[in-house]
Amino acid sequence: MFSAATYVERRKKLCARLTERGEKGLLLFPGNASSPMNYTDNAYPFRQDSSFLYFFGHDHEGLTGVIDLDSGESWYFDQGFSMDDIIWSGAMATPEELAARCGADKYGSENTLSHMVSEARKKQRPIHILPVYRADTRMRLVQLLDCGVMEVNNFISTPFIKEVVALRSIKSIEEVMEIEQALETSYAMYANALSAARPGASERQIASILQSTLALAGSRASFTPICTGRGQILHNHDYTHMLHSGDLLLIDSGAESDNHYASDITRTFPVAGTFTDQQRDVYSIVLAAQEAAISQCAPDVPFIDCHMTAATTIASGLRDLGILKGNVEDIVNAGAHALFFPHGLGHMLGLDVHDMEGLGEDFVGYDETITRSEQFGLRGLRLARKLERGFVVTVEPGCYFIPALMDQWESEGTCKEFINFDTAKQFSEFGGIRIEDDIYISRDGHRVLGQQIPKTIAGIEGRMHACSQRMFQNR
Amino acid sequence: MFSAATYVERRKKLCARLTERGEKGLLLFPGNASSPMNYTDNAYPFRQDSSFLYFFGHDHEGLTGVIDLDSGESWYFDQGFSMDDIIWSGAMATPEELAARCGADKYGSENTLSHMVSEARKKQRPIHILPVYRADTRMRLVQLLDCGVMEVNNFISTPFIKEVVALRSIKSIEEVMEIEQALETSYAMYANALSAARPGASERQIASILQSTLALAGSRASFTPICTGRGQILHNHDYTHMLHSGDLLLIDSGAESDNHYASDITRTFPVAGTFTDQQRDVYSIVLAAQEAAISQCAPDVPFIDCHMTAATTIASGLRDLGILKGNVEDIVNAGAHALFFPHGLGHMLGLDVHDMEGLGEDFVGYDETITRSEQFGLRGLRLARKLERGFVVTVEPGCYFIPALMDQWESEGTCKEFINFDTAKQFSEFGGIRIEDDIYISRDGHRVLGQQIPKTIAGIEGRMHACSQRMFQNR
Repeated sequence: MFSAATYVERRKKLCARLTERGEKGLLLFPGNASSPMNYTDNAYPFRQDSSFLYFFGHDHEGLTGVIDLDSGESWYFDQGFSMDDIIWSGAMATPEELAARCGADKYGSENTLSHMVSEARKKQRPIHILPVYRADTRMRLVQLLDCGVMEVNNFISTPFIKEVVALRSIKSIEEVMEIEQALETSYAMYANALSAARPGASERQIASILQSTLALAGSRASFTPICTGRGQILHNHDYTHMLHSGDLLLIDSGAESDNHYASDITRTFPVAGTFTDQQRDVYSIVLAAQEAAISQCAPDVPFIDCHMTAATTIASGLRDLGILKGNVEDIVNAGAHALFFPHGLGHMLGLDVHDMEGLGEDFVGYDETITRSEQFGLRGLRLARKLERGFVVTVEPGCYFIPALMDQWESEGTCKEFINFDTAKQFSEFGGIRIEDDIYISRDGHRVLGQQIPKTIAGIEGRMHACSQRMFQNR
Repeated sequence: MFSAATYVERRKKLCARLTERGEKGLLLFPGNASSPMNYTDNAYPFRQDSSFLYFFGHDHEGLTGVIDLDSGESWYFDQGFSMDDIIWSGAMATPEELAARCGADKYGSENTLSHMVSEARKKQRPIHILPVYRADTRMRLVQLLDCGVMEVNNFISTPFIKEVVALRSIKSIEEVMEIEQALETSYAMYANALSAARPGASERQIASILQSTLALAGSRASFTPICTGRGQILHNHDYTHMLHSGDLLLIDSGAESDNHYASDITRTFPVAGTFTDQQRDVYSIVLAAQEAAISQCAPDVPFIDCHMTAATTIASGLRDLGILKGNVEDIVNAGAHALFFPHGLGHMLGLDVHDMEGLGEDFVGYDETITRSEQFGLRGLRLARKLERGFVVTVEPGCYFIPALMDQWESEGTCKEFINFDTAKQFSEFGGIRIEDDIYISRDGHRVLGQQIPKTIAGIEGRMHACSQRMFQNR
């Protein structure tokens, strides 16, 4: 946990912003419960709700936080513990100690919480909640708010969401340090994976190295890692294939810091240690797109502009390869490039890998000035609004040759004036490339976070060559 | 998956047993959905519901199985897929192919399923479900059955539960082979952990080795591993401590086979490679208790008798050490030994590590002939009923010195006529020991499953000595 002062300050700011807007009543922060895997007592590793973590910090199940907008007081509620809990889970801190650690003014039991909420409802005081993404949390709110399952939604408060998003969007120095701690683990993950990637290795071997590196760092994955020789399947969680000499290995993975901030990095390596000419051509395009987009990142720049820069770079590169044809601007306006770059450039990063996605993507990535496009490729852009100092975002363009999608566009004639399908299909065994880094928006521009993980062609080939030399010597 | 014939046969047996009992209507098997971690689209690794796996085999989210008791037909329902699914998750098999793989007679969409269930309800045909352990499954059933949240419970069918338990309790040869496959992974986990355990290593290093061994085998943990130098905390999931020379390292872990059958093994090793005299004394008692309990396992033997054998062995051993006093039979009847052996001897093992716990522990471990004891230590015994040929059970006695519990008993005077608290407290830094194997109940007795993982004092010390010799040579 951070010091109590951090949580006190965050809650004070939230309280001030909401009371300024004229909001009254109680803000409810239900922490997460454990998630049953195949029966109640065999649970997945616990993950606390990120807004609870942000405002109350505690990383245990069964907690609730409350901020009383009218008195300004904050409450910490837990379920206490029994001798059985001590036998099975070890000594516990008292509620008093735990409340002090997050600087809560008061603490209480579940009963006190129920009473507080029912009193507030009787007095018709407003009760504010954030959107609910777990069914068990919804059921708990049904009990607590004494309402129907869908009526829970009536308590979701737009001002509450907006002010939480506003606060969580701007990362403090201690938050950026957390993301950089997660990136240290990412660095080790990629260094170890790169050393092991070679023809004849399996995806599973590399995935196992990612897992052990995470565990050794006392970290865990911020999302299920992608580790595949078939990067054209965007969220490929299959690790059952062998890696062959001509394959590109795409690894998209992230770690969590001690306080559960995420890193999110993608690299694409030639399994053979050297890119083929075709791979080199496409890799250079994606890298140029990523570097161009990153260089544009700065306060007041709409992130959609960075996306369009990447799109234009990719369109231009693919036109040079004869895959696209016509005027680059027309290609991009028509969205023809999206056959090969079908996703958005990136997203916010913080306590969630897609930061605050649970609060509503449009609250996080869009505002009054910009609404979501309906165009394929653009409609998936999670972040479009103007960047601000203190944002942390990912920049992750990619280029993929997805046979089923190429077939569909060709048969439907989609963007046929801009696409040489015959040329494109020569790449149908190619796979996919994505390159991703985590970017801090600074006062004057940006900073790429973390120690640099090899990403230039020379950097990757040099590192892989050095690894294979070492292995040869060790034989 | 097993062959379609396996699933067809299981469903036929279930159908036959329930119609013999006069049951009619539809049996509903809602498969699991993905479980959100910190927002909807960042899910935990998917785990299918075990009864769905048993009767329909498919390991994807969003599926439902139905058995029509009146027609004898079985249905496979899925949610279909879109081009977006192909882009993000790769090519999918058609519902027709998937239905064929599990030998379902018919297949349909979610709409067909809704229609089928609402028609059945209109005609007042009985609808049977199993107990629900995930809140999202409950919400789905609220929709499907068009009923209130708690009314879902009215559809839980005791005959359905009992017949599923009866079938799943008896393991076929192919199921035992699955458990043995999981045990191969366990063997590798313990071999690797044992090689790495030494003073100065951290719990985290050993836990990381367990994780990478699982991942490399293409397996995953059947439950969150315990890997601790403080085994007196029974479900200790903390890995933050260093291992010191005098510590005992307790590892309780399991793997899943390809078809999601679990292994469950516990070993306790001296970090230094050699047991101290005190550790040797207590370890010998636990090992004797485990071996005595295992040797008793056979068809028609109530598992509670095996538990009592272990309890008596432990009580007798602790009396010899001066920790307990008086007549052994009196000690065990009073439950005084449970201060040091506070949990049950074991549980069924299968698709769940506590097999079928989600269906209700009393349906699985108890029957008309035996009811659950209220006594501390016995009340947690998950399995008490007579063993049958084909059961797979764990046998896992332990001995722990839990300071908070010893203090509580002493201050309350619990069993004070049988306990030398002063002697017991000399062990307050001892920690805990547990030894666990997986046992198949054969026609005439039992078979310990899997390749033997070292568990005698000589076996453990010999293996650890050999490992440290090798490491020394490698320097």
